[in-house]
Amino acid sequence: MGKNLTTRSEDYSKWYNELVVKADLAENSGVRGCMVIKPYGYAIWEKMQAQLDKMFKETGHQNAYFPLFVPKSMFEAEEKNAEGFAKECAIVTHYRLKNDENNKGKLIVDPNAKLEEELIVRPTSEAIIWSTYKKWVNSYRDLPLLINQWANVVRWEMRTRLFLRTAEFLWQEGHTAHSTQAEALAETKQMLEVYAEFAENFMAIPVVKGIKTETERFAGADETFCIEALMQDGKALQAGTSHFLGQNFAKAFDVKFANQEGKLEYVWGTSWGVSTRLMGALIMTHSDDNGLVLPPNLAPIQVVIVPIHKTDEQLEEISAQVNELVKALRKLNISVKYDDRTNLKPGFKFNEYELKGVPVRLAIGPKDFENGTYEVARRDTLTKEVVAKEGIEIYLQNLLETIQKEMFEKSLAYRDAHITNVETFEEFKEVLETKTGFLAAHWDGTPETEEKIKELTKATIRCVPLNQVAEAGTCILTGKPSTGRVYFAKAY
Amino acid sequence: MGKNLTTRSEDYSKWYNELVVKADLAENSGVRGCMVIKPYGYAIWEKMQAQLDKMFKETGHQNAYFPLFVPKSMFEAEEKNAEGFAKECAIVTHYRLKNDENNKGKLIVDPNAKLEEELIVRPTSEAIIWSTYKKWVNSYRDLPLLINQWANVVRWEMRTRLFLRTAEFLWQEGHTAHSTQAEALAETKQMLEVYAEFAENFMAIPVVKGIKTETERFAGADETFCIEALMQDGKALQAGTSHFLGQNFAKAFDVKFANQEGKLEYVWGTSWGVSTRLMGALIMTHSDDNGLVLPPNLAPIQVVIVPIHKTDEQLEEISAQVNELVKALRKLNISVKYDDRTNLKPGFKFNEYELKGVPVRLAIGPKDFENGTYEVARRDTLTKEVVAKEGIEIYLQNLLETIQKEMFEKSLAYRDAHITNVETFEEFKEVLETKTGFLAAHWDGTPETEEKIKELTKATIRCVPLNQVAEAGTCILTGKPSTGRVYFAKAY
Repeated sequence: MGKNLTTRSEDYSKWYNELVVKADLAENSGVRGCMVIKPYGYAIWEKMQAQLDKMFKETGHQNAYFPLFVPKSMFEAEEKNAEGFAKECAIVTHYRLKNDENNKGKLIVDPNAKLEEELIVRPTSEAIIWSTYKKWVNSYRDLPLLINQWANVVRWEMRTRLFLRTAEFLWQEGHTAHSTQAEALAETKQMLEVYAEFAENFMAIPVVKGIKTETERFAGADETFCIEALMQDGKALQAGTSHFLGQNFAKAFDVKFANQEGKLEYVWGTSWGVSTRLMGALIMTHSDDNGLVLPPNLAPIQVVIVPIHKTDEQLEEISAQVNELVKALRKLNISVKYDDRTNLKPGFKFNEYELKGVPVRLAIGPKDFENGTYEVARRDTLTKEVVAKEGIEIYLQNLLETIQKEMFEKSLAYRDAHITNVETFEEFKEVLETKTGFLAAHWDGTPETEEKIKELTKATIRCVPLNQVAEAGTCILTGKPSTGRVYFAKAY
Repeated sequence: MGKNLTTRSEDYSKWYNELVVKADLAENSGVRGCMVIKPYGYAIWEKMQAQLDKMFKETGHQNAYFPLFVPKSMFEAEEKNAEGFAKECAIVTHYRLKNDENNKGKLIVDPNAKLEEELIVRPTSEAIIWSTYKKWVNSYRDLPLLINQWANVVRWEMRTRLFLRTAEFLWQEGHTAHSTQAEALAETKQMLEVYAEFAENFMAIPVVKGIKTETERFAGADETFCIEALMQDGKALQAGTSHFLGQNFAKAFDVKFANQEGKLEYVWGTSWGVSTRLMGALIMTHSDDNGLVLPPNLAPIQVVIVPIHKTDEQLEEISAQVNELVKALRKLNISVKYDDRTNLKPGFKFNEYELKGVPVRLAIGPKDFENGTYEVARRDTLTKEVVAKEGIEIYLQNLLETIQKEMFEKSLAYRDAHITNVETFEEFKEVLETKTGFLAAHWDGTPETEEKIKELTKATIRCVPLNQVAEAGTCILTGKPSTGRVYFAKAY
């Protein structure tokens, strides 16, 4: 398997596109803007799903499922939300095809099967879910509702890229309803913490936790919290959002509850989501010119073992020993693959597993067999060492933990080295183009200035960091006063 | 919680509809024909998914994800398949909404955003998947492809019923590609066995394995295998299908492979699926006039414990003991809920868990506490007994296995008692209306006779059973010769 990947320094964007396809993660389909997620890519997504689902359930949430379609009148009920998504909606207008009389074997849309009311393919499910919550909520005893949905959604993006921006994508969307503002805000923040913990401990991606500016806020929310990651090319990627919806959807759908005094009040809401976009973040944070680099916690195969042999007898001996090791590793819940295909050379296999980002590769040849050793190669550092077979299970278990930890530390060091305080607009432009990364800068707080900076530099405010330090300063563009720095970056 | 369920004998259909809603499984949404699957119903579906997914992976399948939309030209490529689904397709024709200038705050479909080619919301994914397989298959070395997808699909049904027939439903669809006919046929049969094993061992639903007649075959298949279950009202329900697709889709999408001699051949295909319809089968097989009855293997809560107390001190004592039991049960992987809500009476809780089909209910009052006992109630038989607290974990573990087994045996006895050999059309009509169930009868093998019988009686041929005995006979309608009995029934 020749890799022939474009290198990151040659063309980062091309490197990404090639890697996604060559590592068998996903590919473009015959449907404009929609991707096929291939088995290897889907296996990583399943690992993400399993971990997130566990974390959602541990924080008291239950899964449910709501319709794919939203009738137009329901969709437009929350006006800001509707306006925010109106320009990128797939719309179902008919419910039947019929034979094309002029073209045997072909079908046409049956004009007699026009829907009375158009259906929007959900770009997000607040409308359909809050129209349901109206039926579920009467009293404070019915609250909170803590519900999550795993689903596909459609946003008609004009420029698409595998995982990062596709017309259809997979995600989870949490939708909760509460009796008090404080409880809804606490939920919004709790889910931001869940996302941050997941990104850092499972994806090995350090994130900045922050609040979006009004311009970047989710349409229909009072406040959007986010986690922002930094890719190797110095561009930011929004990895997850958690929205405090206030009473906006409750008012749009008339969802009220009787409080303990029997008085009717509007319900408070939140929504929060992460999507298959996380796959893009995972790839762009860790991978290198040899291919994918996966953190052990999300790798479908954590350890691969490749035999090196000349004779069938050698292979038999080696296999007998390796089969024992495979069993021992599985007992430790390590996912292991023994690749004893005889029609492929070891070098081919090494390349393949490097491309696919398997964290640890073991090789064993006749000499290793004699010496009672394995050659152990780390994917993240590309280093090798020879390790005695006795106790190698525990060695590997520890190694996987070390890799997980060191991958995070490496990304963290890169990220921290790419948060730069800038004081003037000249400096801002220069750092943005040369050093790249997050630019911590003073801003006068107006959408106009934000828009102007975006126009002039393509940088957007990624967030007001939650750990913002109070500091008097002046806006890099207007010189007006500011009380703390916000994070700018070019972003995916 | 008053149950007030219509009884099965009063009106089976009404009983079903009420039960689905009152047991919090699902409800109709504001979107025509689409349901909301509520958390409790979804939790059962998740258990089904987890088990099926395990069985698919154990038989070598991997999950992947393909687009929701199918361009019309791709959809119509396999003509029979397209024709079979054309009349029930949701069709996306536009990709943008805009403000309605005559109606502030409202949106209309933007006529300038008409798609060049309409997109069909997938009613099934053979077309999109085989158009992808074309890219994946070159040589015999690329085969077999053993892929499954968990997804939502849309079929525009005119008359819908929760779980049984909904415009949108959730399912899994396996799509495999093979180099030989024999291998594809073996796969088709293997997946039928997987479905049968799942139905019988997890859902406790006995099934008849068989082959569909040409009339009832999947559009685009050469042969459709099925499992058929019998509901308590004597109507059959198709619970899963596995299709041998021959080379039909390979030819429609030009999917060829180079065999070992380097010669190009068309690939052989299968597809197989089960859906949220299984929820309907589960409900209608086991439940009674008190509500749902769930087999332990699929119950989100297997054991519920309800304290009965007068004073706070009593509750405290009981809770201390129960908390230990809860821990012990969880160690045995038994899913248990301790319901110590103090604002609800025990009788209310008993009713609630009966309605929700929790297999085992424990109650403990002050006397039980003194005597070192629990009252153990079985949901399936509605029987109670008093059991010593010592060793009750193991007792419950065994009891759950017993319930699982006895629920299956009960359904099996009912099913077996409702397979009736009939010899004449008069007898056929009488048994169909009085005894109901499967009617094993001779049929002359023609679609015309099948259609005529359906017209006259509403009974359809559910399948030619795989275990059909060779037996000379004459068709109940035409008197023409037949070589074995097929199974007729009225069906969902």
